[in-house]
Formats: sequence, structure tokens, C-alpha cells
Amino acid sequence: MIALVTRMTADVEQLWLTALSQKLPGETIIPFRDLDEASREKVDIAVVANPDPADIAQLPGLKWIHSVWAGVERLVGELGKSRLPIVRLVDPQLSRTMAEAVLAWTYYLFRDMPAYAQFQRQRVWQQLAYRRPEQVTVGLLGLGALGAASAARLKEAGFNVIGWSRAAKSLEGVETFHGEQGLDLLLSRSEILVCLLPLTGETKGLLNGTRLSMLPKGASLINFARGPIVVTDALIAALSSSAMKHAVLDVFDVEPLPADNTVWDHPAITVLAHISAPTDRETAAAIVAGNILTYRETGALPPTVDLARGY
Amino acid sequence: MIALVTRMTADVEQLWLTALSQKLPGETIIPFRDLDEASREKVDIAVVANPDPADIAQLPGLKWIHSVWAGVERLVGELGKSRLPIVRLVDPQLSRTMAEAVLAWTYYLFRDMPAYAQFQRQRVWQQLAYRRPEQVTVGLLGLGALGAASAARLKEAGFNVIGWSRAAKSLEGVETFHGEQGLDLLLSRSEILVCLLPLTGETKGLLNGTRLSMLPKGASLINFARGPIVVTDALIAALSSSAMKHAVLDVFDVEPLPADNTVWDHPAITVLAHISAPTDRETAAAIVAGNILTYRETGALPPTVDLARGY
Ligand SMILES: NC(=O)c1ccc[n+]([C@@H]2O[C@H](COP(=O)([O-])OP(=O)(O)OC[C@H]3O[C@@H](n4cnc5c(N)ncnc54)[C@H](OP(=O)(O)O)[C@@H]3O)[C@@H](O)[C@H]2O)c1
Ligand SMILES: NC(=O)c1ccc[n+]([C@@H]2O[C@H](COP(=O)([O-])OP(=O)(O)OC[C@H]3O[C@@H](n4cnc5c(N)ncnc54)[C@H](OP(=O)(O)O)[C@@H]3O)[C@@H](O)[C@H]2O)c1
Repeated sequence: MIALVTRMTADVEQLWLTALSQKLPGETIIPFRDLDEASREKVDIAVVANPDPADIAQLPGLKWIHSVWAGVERLVGELGKSRLPIVRLVDPQLSRTMAEAVLAWTYYLFRDMPAYAQFQRQRVWQQLAYRRPEQVTVGLLGLGALGAASAARLKEAGFNVIGWSRAAKSLEGVETFHGEQGLDLLLSRSEILVCLLPLTGETKGLLNGTRLSMLPKGASLINFARGPIVVTDALIAALSSSAMKHAVLDVFDVEPLPADNTVWDHPAITVLAHISAPTDRETAAAIVAGNILTYRETGALPPTVDLARGY
Repeated sequence: MIALVTRMTADVEQLWLTALSQKLPGETIIPFRDLDEASREKVDIAVVANPDPADIAQLPGLKWIHSVWAGVERLVGELGKSRLPIVRLVDPQLSRTMAEAVLAWTYYLFRDMPAYAQFQRQRVWQQLAYRRPEQVTVGLLGLGALGAASAARLKEAGFNVIGWSRAAKSLEGVETFHGEQGLDLLLSRSEILVCLLPLTGETKGLLNGTRLSMLPKGASLINFARGPIVVTDALIAALSSSAMKHAVLDVFDVEPLPADNTVWDHPAITVLAHISAPTDRETAAAIVAGNILTYRETGALPPTVDLARGY
């Protein structure tokens, strides 16, 4: 039996239930809130979105957990000790949407949209010099499912693309770096820095004042990963001193970003509401269903989260 | 002998002179302002950027004119009566830059950047529904050098692309229309309308209130062609009544857009300073030089502007 364990509203949870049930006609899928005590014991798989760990603890027969989200730092933090295998969403549609967002907001910076918006407010007719994308280096932190797809889109668009990962990696047309020294090199060359790292013990606070100061003067940042990877105060200091030009932030230490947070008002920060790459319910449900069917037939799980690494 | 006839500053004209001279070592190229009376008679080719027609009139031996710009409505208007052949700039680099601009500002609209900017000003955390590019129809007015390149980029990015031209045209993966009735059909389906038409007697005022009202409710406009193709008051009325959502304007009836123009302040208009696709001096000079060399060797001109059609 499959439990759907989320903190979504009942309406939204119902949409997930319908999508999953259509794709798994042979399975009984029940939202946690509707499970009686007897049924709880029969649940062997939990499909989750931001679940309450107390709910998960009430499923004694649970064998593994499938998240419908790509980021799992919270699951790892809250459920890591249980040693339950965690499968996260790896969805080509999600990668496409994220790569699109990375290209869209890279263009936003590259084509100087924030500066032209400011000129418009000031009623100033001013033309900035155009550079070709080949003349601009975009650095990607993270070359996983989302980072690699984004690198390919940026490359197609003509940008000079460099990237960084934990293990050495080779990607067509992309100069790649890894390790601490590799990071310094990448930072020193990235006019636009795009963060697509998972949040782990190692990446928390990675982009601190020292590392941001390694960027070329006037560099910009796009953070589409997780808020705590960037030290917000250091970023604000770099933007306020004009060492950095602009930041596009889709993720924050606390979400929703509190109304009294000064980030909202910073002229060099574009605030997005965690919208860069929303999960597509239909494609995600199909992938979760496929993984569950394979498990039922063969007992095999897709690659699970490495609880020690944190991703 | 070649005359360089522009209304550029002497500094910028000098840069063009250098670029052209390097690529045409066998030619004498002289800025009009430096030509003495005797030399004026020897000029057979004028390379121009927004020339003063009075200057052109002082070149009695002129055989043809090469513009370093793509748009020639002013040349046609001011010099059309002379019947001098006019060659305009057709530069693959310009087409690439324009296609990039079309994709960049289509993403700007498609990914709701104006709405998120407004949410940010209001400190509101709100997530708008994501649609895939396949679910959005972008209509292109004009399928020439710039329009066709833009159609291909939009198609690559996954959008549903439809297009309109004067003569029937077939473009891979793009549904095409032509003529008056074709325009109505295209308008009725274009959620994002991109204008890349030349300014001519036929296209002046084309996008009037009647035609804008044929767009789907909440449609947006990108005008990267020429200001007078759009009836500004009708556009403002459509935006102010929310019949249309947003307009990105790079071109205006008068440029620079006067500081007291109300367009600057309209919350649903993004003003750009004619920057969507600047001429690249190096590639443009190479193309002009190539056309001149061919003419010297064979006497043949590249396709010239049709003075009757106006483009
Ligand atoms: N804003 C949004 O809407 C949104 C949507 C979805 C996901 N996300 C975020 O995006 C993140 C990335 O997703 P993904 O699917 O691409 O993850 P992934 O496939 O696990 O890729 C993670 C990448 O980061 C690299 N990495 C991890 N730790 C590192 C370290 N300490 N040093 C250097 N590189 C390190 C990995 O290196 P190796 O290749 O060497 O392992 C890998 O290349 C998610 O964790 C989530 O937080 C955000
Ligand atoms: N904002 C900027 O930075 C910038 C930069 C460069 C150029 N521009 C503007 O872009 C314009 C287009 O450039 P281009 O090189 O693509 O021109 P082009 O190659 O001459 O193409 C013009 C297109 O418009 C179509 N067209 C012309 N009159 C029409 C009419 N009455 N009805 C329907 N379709 C009509 C043509 O149809 P056919 O194919 O049937 O002939 C053709 O497809 C230029 O004229 C210039 O004003 C702006």
C-alpha cells in the first residue's frame, strides 16, 4: 500500500492522488490523513512532498520514500537517521524547465534588463554596449540533472560556459572544474554565476564574502538552488558596494520571503517566488509511477539519495 | 571613390572608416565632411548611415548607396525620387542578435518577469502557474532576414510559432499566413505578438485599435521594428483596459523617446532604447566590403530595395 504524505492543502493533494492513481491502477494509494491505524501498517512506500516526519514515523512497514521534489535536504535532515532509502524526483521535464529559466534569467542579465528598467524609471534614453554571448562567461555551480541541462542550453545560445561539480566531470563544450581550487578558478572567470547545487553540509554558506569577492568586478548571481548556499549579508554587501552588479534570487533562507525582509527593496536584487522550475504534476507522477512499477516487478530502486553526502 | 555619409559623431565615423578601410585596402574611402569639390565628383558609391539627403545630392557621379543599417524607410522616403539603387544591410550576425533579443524578451513575457517585478515592489510572494512553451503561441509579423531567424529560435525554444508575410512563405515548423485575412487569423491566435516588419506605406499604422482588439485577451506585444507601425494611443488604450497585458517597445514615433512622453510611466510598457539588435561594426563592414568588391569585379549589385514596395 502507498501513502501520500504531504503538507499540501487537501485540494492539491487530491490532484496528486488522481494523477498517481491513474498511472498506478493496480495500487491502493491513500493520503496519510485518511489512513486508519490498521492500514498504516500495510504501507510500504511513501510518496512525499515536504512530509511531517511525525507522520512518516507512524508507518512501521515503510520500505522507502519517493519525493516528488528534486531537492531533498529537508528529508535528509529530518529522516536521515531512519536510514530509509530516499528517491528524489529526476524528471527530464523539470530539467527542461530549469534550463529554460536559467537561459531566460541569464538573458535578463546579459541583455541588461535591470539597467533598462532603471533608465525607464528615470526617463533616460541610454544605449549600453552590446557584447555577443561568446564574449560572456557563465559559470555553473552544480552539473547534475539540472546543471547539465542548463549548461547545454546556455552553450546552444552561444555563451562561454564553465561548470563546477564535486567529482571531475566532462560535458561537451563546457570547461569543467572540481574541488576547492577548481571553485576559485571558476569564480574568478564567471561574469554570471548560476547556482544549481543541492543544499548539504558542504554547500551551506559556500558563497560567502570571500568567495563572492573572487568574482570579476560587476559579476551577477542567479540562485535557483537553495537560499542558505549564499550568505545573504555578504551578497548584499557586494551588491551595495557595486563589486557585484545584480542578483536574481528564487530561493531564500526563509520562504515565503518575509514581508519585512530588506532583500525585497534592494535595487540590485530581483526577487522571485521559488518559481524557476515548478514540478509538473503529470510528468512527475508518471516518473514516480514508473519507479514504483519497476520496484514491484524487480525489487530494484532507482538511484537513492546518498545520506552521507546529503544529495 | 567611396564616400562615407553619416550623421554620426566624427569619432564613431572614424571607427567605421577604419573598419571599412581595413577590409577594402584597394579603395579610397573618405568621409563626406572631408571631401573637396573635385573629389565629390569622383565618388561612385556612398556607404551611409542616416545620411543628410543634401550631402547625397552633392555627389553627381553616385551609382548606388549601401546602408550599414537594415531599416531603410528614411532612405526610401528621402532619396527614393533619385532612383539610385539602395542596398541595405543583410547580416547574419544582425539576424542572430535580433533572434536572441526576440527570444530574450519573449522569455521576459512568458516567464512573467513584469508581474514578478510588480510583486516585488509590493513585497508579495505569489506564484503564477507555469505553462510549457508548447502551450503558448507566438505570432511573428514579418518573416524576412530578422523574422525568419527569430522564428527558428523561438521554435527551437519550444514555442508554438506562427508568422505573417506579404507573399506566401513556407518555413520549417512554422504555420504561415499572408494577406489581410491571414493577418486577422494570426492576430486572433497570438498570445505574444512580435513585430519585425519594415516601415512602409502599407505597414504604417497597421497595428491600430481594430487589429489589436483581435488579439486574445491578455496578449502582449513586442515591437522591435519601427514605432509608427503601432498606433501608440490604441496600444495604450488596450493596455490600460487590460485587454492586453504588456508591451515591450524598442522603437518609437520619435527617438530618443522624449522625456515628457507618457509611455515612460505606463506600468504595462517596457521601454528600451532601440537596443534590440545593434549593428555589429566589424561584421557589417565585412559585408559592405564584400558587396563592393563583387561590384568592382562583376558590376553586379546584391538585391536592392524595391522603391515601390518601400523595403
Ligand atoms: N528553484 C527551484 O524551483 C528548484 C527546482 C528544482 C530543484 N532545485 C534545486 O536544485 C538542486 C540541484 O538539483 P539537481 O537535480 O541538479 O541535483 P543533482 O542531480 O544531485 O546534482 C547536484 C550537482 O551538484 C554537485 N555538488 C553537490 N555537492 C557538491 C559539492 N560539495 N561541491 C561541488 N559540487 C557539488 C554535484 O556534483 P557531482 O556531479 O560530482 O555529484 C552535482 O553536479 C536541488 O538540490 C534543489 O535544491 C530548485
Ligand atoms: N530595433 C532594432 O534594433 C532593429 C534592428 C534592425 C532592423 N530593425 C527593423 O526590422 C525590420 C525588418 O528587417 P528585415 O531585415 O527582417 O527585413 P526584410 O528581410 O525586408 O523582411 C521584411 C518582412 O516583412 C514582410 N512585409 C513587408 N511588408 C509587408 C506587408 N505589407 N504585409 C505583410 N508582410 C510584409 C516581408 O514579406 P515578404 O517576405 O513577403 O517580402 C518580409 O517577410 C527593418 O525594416 C527595420 O525597420 C530594427
